Amino acid sequence: MSMKTVGILGGGQLARMMVLAGAPMGLRFELFDPASDACGAQLAPLTVGAFDDREALAAFAAKVDVVTFDFENVPAESAQWLAERVPVHPSPSVLAVAQDRLSEKTLFQQLDIPLPPFADIRSRDELAAKTAEFGLPCILKTRRLGYDGKGQFRLRSEADIDAAWDALGAQVEKTGLILEGFVAFQREVSVVAVRGSDGSFRAYPVTGNWHVDGVLSASVAPARLSAAEHDAAIGHARRLADHLQYVGVFALELFCRDGELLANEMAPRVHNSGHWTIEGSETSQFENHLRAVLGLPLGDTRMLGHACMLNWIGAMPDAGAVLAQASGHWHDYGKQPRDGRKVGHATLRDDDAGALANALEQVGGTLDRQAQVEPAVHALRTL
Amino acid sequence: MSMKTVGILGGGQLARMMVLAGAPMGLRFELFDPASDACGAQLAPLTVGAFDDREALAAFAAKVDVVTFDFENVPAESAQWLAERVPVHPSPSVLAVAQDRLSEKTLFQQLDIPLPPFADIRSRDELAAKTAEFGLPCILKTRRLGYDGKGQFRLRSEADIDAAWDALGAQVEKTGLILEGFVAFQREVSVVAVRGSDGSFRAYPVTGNWHVDGVLSASVAPARLSAAEHDAAIGHARRLADHLQYVGVFALELFCRDGELLANEMAPRVHNSGHWTIEGSETSQFENHLRAVLGLPLGDTRMLGHACMLNWIGAMPDAGAVLAQASGHWHDYGKQPRDGRKVGHATLRDDDAGALANALEQVGGTLDRQAQVEPAVHALRTL
Repeated sequence: MSMKTVGILGGGQLARMMVLAGAPMGLRFELFDPASDACGAQLAPLTVGAFDDREALAAFAAKVDVVTFDFENVPAESAQWLAERVPVHPSPSVLAVAQDRLSEKTLFQQLDIPLPPFADIRSRDELAAKTAEFGLPCILKTRRLGYDGKGQFRLRSEADIDAAWDALGAQVEKTGLILEGFVAFQREVSVVAVRGSDGSFRAYPVTGNWHVDGVLSASVAPARLSAAEHDAAIGHARRLADHLQYVGVFALELFCRDGELLANEMAPRVHNSGHWTIEGSETSQFENHLRAVLGLPLGDTRMLGHACMLNWIGAMPDAGAVLAQASGHWHDYGKQPRDGRKVGHATLRDDDAGALANALEQVGGTLDRQAQVEPAVHALRTL
Repeated sequence: MSMKTVGILGGGQLARMMVLAGAPMGLRFELFDPASDACGAQLAPLTVGAFDDREALAAFAAKVDVVTFDFENVPAESAQWLAERVPVHPSPSVLAVAQDRLSEKTLFQQLDIPLPPFADIRSRDELAAKTAEFGLPCILKTRRLGYDGKGQFRLRSEADIDAAWDALGAQVEKTGLILEGFVAFQREVSVVAVRGSDGSFRAYPVTGNWHVDGVLSASVAPARLSAAEHDAAIGHARRLADHLQYVGVFALELFCRDGELLANEMAPRVHNSGHWTIEGSETSQFENHLRAVLGLPLGDTRMLGHACMLNWIGAMPDAGAVLAQASGHWHDYGKQPRDGRKVGHATLRDDDAGALANALEQVGGTLDRQAQVEPAVHALRTL
């Protein structure tokens, strides 16, 4: 194993954390990213190139034993081209499904995974008709290349139909459009799970997530769910993974509404809502992803106590408040500050939910981030 | 914190594991080692130079915010010279004490830390006299530069005195010699602890260790000790650290004989017997060492359940047997195989001591290393 080199398409923080999980096991890495300052390059060699630069991809492929992703919007054709030269996990066909909201949601439907209403939208008239059918609010999205709330338009009233069409209508031919019925959910949760090439499957406890402006702000594991909801969520993830013959870690995001779980989307990669697994579980999502793509036995996904992850967006706060907590762990991705950019995170862990809530309140107070910690504190206090 | 660069003198596996502990926190590293293939260089920039090459050291110092060690036998003068240019932790004066068995043992004596009899030896006659006084067996050692059983001669009978003197007598002027009374101990244990520059102190649970040919083979934490022995061991470590105004992680090795603890030696650095802390405790020894040398709050040293570390010496075994265990973690330092060389380790962890013993037996059986796991299995079954 020690001689294996893993190639990662995308060299951001997910790649960086994969390197940090794999290096202890003696793995070597090669990263590929269009940006020369990709933060993973602080820890592993980087090839700078466009994701459709065949010459650069060929040189990259020659250096690695297996290819995986830190970025799901690598062109599926590039992934397919690589897969003809070197093993690629997850497979390019999975990537193609996950890149297209319509294919993804159609698959959920086929697999009896409940989800909010959705429709392929090809004209302003179809938008108007489906908006009337689903009821307001609705969200119009591009079928492809959406990321963290970009390429979306929320329709709050019939008057928004024209504005939505003006904003996104031109994308019909380029990326396609999809209309999604809005779910007035009480909670957002995600299943982070891993499947091996031999069909073995392990899921981490379901995680509760809070977003701000479409970007993950905080996660708590385990999520506040009934045992039945928990099992249903993991069952959905397993059906999806088995159907896709998925290899690696993935996330399935779900809405909870009145005890009902509705699938939102899947991410065919390690996931922000699984960062707490680094300190909070026996085997992190990053190590398990590597184990899966290398055909090694999967690691235990059991977690110890309760964990909360806080995302740092834009710029890193001072580390002191987190490090002063008994189980405070600090992650700084080594990125330049920039508005809206994920630059790091913190994880706090405790065997006792109340003690974790107290620690979070202290961190929130010291950093003047009460609003960020409040939903997690509330969730931990009302288990 | 994210902009801080830590310089490490020595670029071996200890430096490598410090890099892996510090990179998540956004720390940068610079390594300095005489060997161009030092395994830490796979993860951080390496300056290749002799430890007394002032020009190379000056260039190194200019690139870092703080200097620490993965190797305690860096010339104390080089450490002192560096300390006039950049903060160095632990301090060069501590290094000087730890490099000289006689100074070290004299200090233990001053601090009322019990230890086996020892004597400064300057002639064959003194060797004969002290051998008679301590009784056989005895061990003649060089005062300086011993490492993992090298530079030592065990005297089993009076007839060995000439052979011992022939082997090491020439070192009297170079390194000095020390005679140590042999302790028929039942157990070897170590305290791995950390002290901050503000005097804060945290110890990991005492670890039980087994050596083969003077090299650590296996460790189990917590060690089989009475609460009184456990507290005494940690008390000794604390007195030592406070006296030295130590900053960073260190290890104190002790023998247990009939409920009595006798100090063997201290290592002024992260320690092989603390590798289990990576997965087995809230904050690893590597992260805590970095927190201390950077003046950050120390992390919690509590451990979860029981942990066992197995050292891989010479060459890496197959990873499958360890990775198939629920809490098996694999560490490969990325070194070329070589007789007697530490090339990696594995850590297994479990909340239940019996389950951990069973897992170790399986690993020992699959890898045909029953003798390596047996003492740890026995210790876990007789808690």
